Amino acid sequence: MTATTSATEGISTEELQLALRNSGMPLEALRWSITPVGLHYLLTHYDIPAVDVATWRLEVGGLVKRALSLSLDDLQRRETIELPSTMECAGNGRARLDPRPVSQPWLTEAIGTAAWTGTPLASLLEEADLDESAVEVLFTGLDRGVEGGTSQAYERSLTAAEALEAGAILAWGVNGVPLPPQHGYPLRLVVPGWYGMTNVKWLHRITAIDAPFEGYQQAHGYRIRQEEDEPGTPVTRMVPRALMLPPGVPEFLTRRRFLESGSHVLEGRAWSGRGEIVRVEVSVDGCSTWADAVLGDAPGPHAWRAWSFEWQADPGEQVLSCRATDSAGNTQPLEPEWNLGGYSNNAVQRLSVTVE
Amino acid sequence: MTATTSATEGISTEELQLALRNSGMPLEALRWSITPVGLHYLLTHYDIPAVDVATWRLEVGGLVKRALSLSLDDLQRRETIELPSTMECAGNGRARLDPRPVSQPWLTEAIGTAAWTGTPLASLLEEADLDESAVEVLFTGLDRGVEGGTSQAYERSLTAAEALEAGAILAWGVNGVPLPPQHGYPLRLVVPGWYGMTNVKWLHRITAIDAPFEGYQQAHGYRIRQEEDEPGTPVTRMVPRALMLPPGVPEFLTRRRFLESGSHVLEGRAWSGRGEIVRVEVSVDGCSTWADAVLGDAPGPHAWRAWSFEWQADPGEQVLSCRATDSAGNTQPLEPEWNLGGYSNNAVQRLSVTVE
Repeated sequence: MTATTSATEGISTEELQLALRNSGMPLEALRWSITPVGLHYLLTHYDIPAVDVATWRLEVGGLVKRALSLSLDDLQRRETIELPSTMECAGNGRARLDPRPVSQPWLTEAIGTAAWTGTPLASLLEEADLDESAVEVLFTGLDRGVEGGTSQAYERSLTAAEALEAGAILAWGVNGVPLPPQHGYPLRLVVPGWYGMTNVKWLHRITAIDAPFEGYQQAHGYRIRQEEDEPGTPVTRMVPRALMLPPGVPEFLTRRRFLESGSHVLEGRAWSGRGEIVRVEVSVDGCSTWADAVLGDAPGPHAWRAWSFEWQADPGEQVLSCRATDSAGNTQPLEPEWNLGGYSNNAVQRLSVTVE
Repeated sequence: MTATTSATEGISTEELQLALRNSGMPLEALRWSITPVGLHYLLTHYDIPAVDVATWRLEVGGLVKRALSLSLDDLQRRETIELPSTMECAGNGRARLDPRPVSQPWLTEAIGTAAWTGTPLASLLEEADLDESAVEVLFTGLDRGVEGGTSQAYERSLTAAEALEAGAILAWGVNGVPLPPQHGYPLRLVVPGWYGMTNVKWLHRITAIDAPFEGYQQAHGYRIRQEEDEPGTPVTRMVPRALMLPPGVPEFLTRRRFLESGSHVLEGRAWSGRGEIVRVEVSVDGCSTWADAVLGDAPGPHAWRAWSFEWQADPGEQVLSCRATDSAGNTQPLEPEWNLGGYSNNAVQRLSVTVE
C-alpha cells in the first residue's frame, strides 16, 4: 500500500532516514555542466552491495539465441562511448505534494548530469540475438531488499524496441573515473532521457522475456495513478524542468537568499527526456509575468541545456521562477499535478530572495 | 536564537531542505576502512563556492613575523603527508534529542573516514613565525552566508598551541584524487580527532590573532549549553562512538533489517577523538546485556577501528547495539545527553532486525 500524509504534517522519522541516506544535488552545483562525482543525486533503494569484480560477470540470457557471460574486461574491449546524460529521480518534487506520498521526500534536488563511459546496449543485444518471442528485456541488479512485503533484487525492464533503440549504454565509468560503489560499480545501465529508476545499478543479469515484466518496481512502483487499485500508467521519460542556481548567499537554516540590488545574471539549466529544450522563461514576480531567458549550450544531446537571464533586482522580497518547454510542446505547470506515488512533479521552482 | 521542537513533532520543511542538501554516509559504507569519495558525510553551511585556482592564494598573516602568500603549487612543493582521519559532524545524533534542536537533523550517519593528502600546518606556522602576542589562529573559508542575522564567511579558530600541536594538515587531496568542490577545493584544514566544524573548507586565509575569536561559529555555534544566555563550553574533540554495518537486507521505507536465523558476524567501526579505542561491546537484546567484540585494525592512528562479533541469531524481533570505550575512559551513554545546539550526542545505536 502507498501511504500519504498531509503536506502540513511534518516529515516522519522514516522519511528522514531516507532523506539522510539518499543525497540531493545542492542547487549551487548547477554551476557545473557535468556534475562532479559526489554531487550527483543518489537514490539507493536497498543497500549499496559489495561486489568482487574478480568473480563478477554480466550474464545475458533468457530468450536469446546466444547467451553471453562477460567479465568487466570483456565489456571494456567492446566499442566504448561517452554519454553525457542528465538524470532525475522520478520522485523529484514529491515532498511538495499535498497530501504527501510517504517515500523519499525530495524537494527539487534529485538531479545531476554525468559523463558516463560504457558500451552500447544495442550491439550487445544484437550479438546475443533476441528471439522473436522476446518482448521485453529485464535488467537485474545485485542490490536486494524487501518492498511490498516481498524480498527481491532491484530489477526493471524495457521493451525490446526501447532496449534496442533508446541509445542505452552499459557504463563502467563516470566523469573519467571507474564507477564508484554508490553509482553501481562495476556496471550500470544508463538510458538517456528516462527517469533514474530505469538506470539499474550493480547490474549482473540481462534477461530477454516473453511477457511484460510484472515485478514490484514495474507493476506496483513507478506508476502514475490516483488510487491504489487502478493499474495506472508507467513512469518513463523525464518531463521538462528548469532549475535556477540560487543567486546571492543563503541563510543557514532557512536557505533564504540575500543579495544586493542592481544588475544580476540569473543562470540555470533545463532538460527534458521528451524533446529538445526550446524555451526557458523566467519570472521575477512570483509567476505573474514571464520573459524569455537566453539559451546556452548542453554538454550533449541528452544533457541539460544552460540558460541565463539578466535581472535588474529592486530592493524587497522577490520570488524567482523558471519554466522550461521542450520541442514536443511539453511545459512545466505552475502547480503540482498530484498522483499517489508522488512521481514526475515538475511544477516550477520558486526561490525566495531578499534584495537589499 | 536556537529553536527547539518536540521530538514527536515531524521534521519541518526547513530541516528537510538541510537534510536533502547535506549528505549522510549510508551505514553499509562502514564496510570500507576508507570511505569512497561521494559516500563521506557532507555538511555545507552556506554554498559550495566556485574557486578559480589560477588566482586563488592562501594568505597567512596577522600577528606573524613573516606573512606568506602561497599558490596551490607552492603548497604542493612543501612536505606532503597522507592522513587517514575519521570525521564526524558535531550535530550527529541531533534528531534523536527531545526536544529536538532545529538545525541539520542528523540521525547517526554524519561520519566518514578519508585519506587526506596535504602539508603539515605546524611547519607553515613555524615558517610564518607567530608573534608572541598571538593566542589563536583563525581559519577563514571562501563560503559566505547569513547566520544569527549577520553576513559572514565561515571561519573558526584554534588556540596557537592546538594549531601547532594537533597534527593538523592543509589538504588538497582526498583518497588519492584532488579535493572535489564539496570537500573544500582547492584547500581545506584537517584537524585529526576534532568534530567536522573545525576542518574549514575552501580555506583562503590564516590569521594569527591576539584574543580568542568571537565570531558566530565559535562564540554562538558549537557550544554545549542548556540555555540560550549561558556561555557554555566549546565543542572540540569527538567523543567515542561505535556503529554497526546493518546486517541482512533492508525494507525500503522503514529500513528495518531482515535476516535469516543462524550464525552471523556483526561488523562495524569505532572511533574517538579523545583516546585510542580500547573496547567495543555489543548487545543483541536491546541493551540489557553486553559482550566484548573483537577489535581489528584502523587505517591510521586518527581513524576508526574495525570490530566484529559472532552472533547466533534466533528467530524473532531483535535490537542490536554497540558501545565504544576509549583509552581516556570515555564511553557511550545509553540515552542522549541533551544540549541546546544538539551537539555531540553519542548515545548508542539501536538497530531493529527481524530474524526469520
